[in-house]
Amino acid sequence: MLFFTQCFGAVLDLIHLRFQHYKAKRVFSAAGQLVCVVNPTHSLKYAPTLCAAAQTSVEQGVLPPCHHHEAVHDPQLVPCTCPLFSCPWEGHLEVVVSHLRQTHRINILQGAEIVFLATDMHLPAPTDWIIMHSCLGHQFLLVLRKQEKYEGHPQFFATMMLIGTPTQADNFTYRLELNRNQRRLKWEATPRSVLECVDSVISDGDCLVLNTSLAQLFSDNGSLAIGIAITTSKVHNAEGEM
Amino acid sequence: MLFFTQCFGAVLDLIHLRFQHYKAKRVFSAAGQLVCVVNPTHSLKYAPTLCAAAQTSVEQGVLPPCHHHEAVHDPQLVPCTCPLFSCPWEGHLEVVVSHLRQTHRINILQGAEIVFLATDMHLPAPTDWIIMHSCLGHQFLLVLRKQEKYEGHPQFFATMMLIGTPTQADNFTYRLELNRNQRRLKWEATPRSVLECVDSVISDGDCLVLNTSLAQLFSDNGSLAIGIAITTSKVHNAEGEM
Repeated sequence: MLFFTQCFGAVLDLIHLRFQHYKAKRVFSAAGQLVCVVNPTHSLKYAPTLCAAAQTSVEQGVLPPCHHHEAVHDPQLVPCTCPLFSCPWEGHLEVVVSHLRQTHRINILQGAEIVFLATDMHLPAPTDWIIMHSCLGHQFLLVLRKQEKYEGHPQFFATMMLIGTPTQADNFTYRLELNRNQRRLKWEATPRSVLECVDSVISDGDCLVLNTSLAQLFSDNGSLAIGIAITTSKVHNAEGEM
Repeated sequence: MLFFTQCFGAVLDLIHLRFQHYKAKRVFSAAGQLVCVVNPTHSLKYAPTLCAAAQTSVEQGVLPPCHHHEAVHDPQLVPCTCPLFSCPWEGHLEVVVSHLRQTHRINILQGAEIVFLATDMHLPAPTDWIIMHSCLGHQFLLVLRKQEKYEGHPQFFATMMLIGTPTQADNFTYRLELNRNQRRLKWEATPRSVLECVDSVISDGDCLVLNTSLAQLFSDNGSLAIGIAITTSKVHNAEGEM
């Protein structure tokens, strides 16, 4: 009996997933676009003054939850870049991706343009939605975070980071696009390197920022579809195209 | 002597204006784009619960500072749509533009694509930057507002409204674009009708919203250049193009 109940549950989950895919595809219907359903994770390590706290921890000899490159003794080694957990791991930049996949179970998607479908947008802050995106021979980390900068007023912050050096990151442009209810919002920028702290990018507000009402306008039944595209940097030279 | 001082002041102003034009054109360099320098006005009538207050005033027989179409006795007449001042004027929709120009001295610009250069972004909230834009046979009102929704945290809100009915407004799409420092932010939506209240559009957050740090990233020397384009609505049918 338990077996049948579980099977039925799994089938229901599959139908739900299929339905979410369908909804996302209806919005982002271009052929060949990959829709990735991303479930939220309640951020275990987030604190408003994380980066400052990290610095203090380094001084106290405790492993920081948010590493800066400066904090690593061997310049060849980088800390774990997962924005979700405090993790003592450090290793070469080339193996960060496999660490994130294996230890933190962050999905990786291939393709020039993908759709990131974040579910359960109503969950309380702090919450993170994270995937990796493999494109143009590099891997990128997409972070959507729900956070209360002003108490009682949660906002959504979305940014893309290159799993590579700042110099490599300068060669790319990422675009995040929301499109629903006769509204369209596009954010284009150069990705930051994961060697910079994702928390400081978000606290600086140098990313796509959505207040709750806009997030609701762009959401469909509690899920937010974000179209993602990465290109090599042409936008810098074409700033006058507008 | 006073005459010479004044002349010198005027020449300096002209040079400053010319320099601002040049800066805006450097960013939005497409030939034929009109750059309009828009100076701020400290909003005299703004209060957080303006629309609620308006409703109360109607009940008390006092002229509301923010009119809804429902509040007008003669359905042929509309109230003054200037978001800056409480104004007892009402008249036919066709003469709203000339009232705004003559009484409130709001500039009107022609052209399919213009650049709105808002100066003195550092001024404290509440502050408004307003122009009218004449395009595709209609007139639109562009409002940029600096407002503190959360005390101590001013934000910028930009929206475009058609000086016409909601049914007419549905035929258009407006685009606001910021482009600077290797970042680009685009907002596209159907304009609201001026018969709806600009204050409620902004308090709902259904517009382009910028926090102070993003506004600074997009500003050049205290001025924010917003590229504006209006088209007839094709985006609704092309939602799946992404």
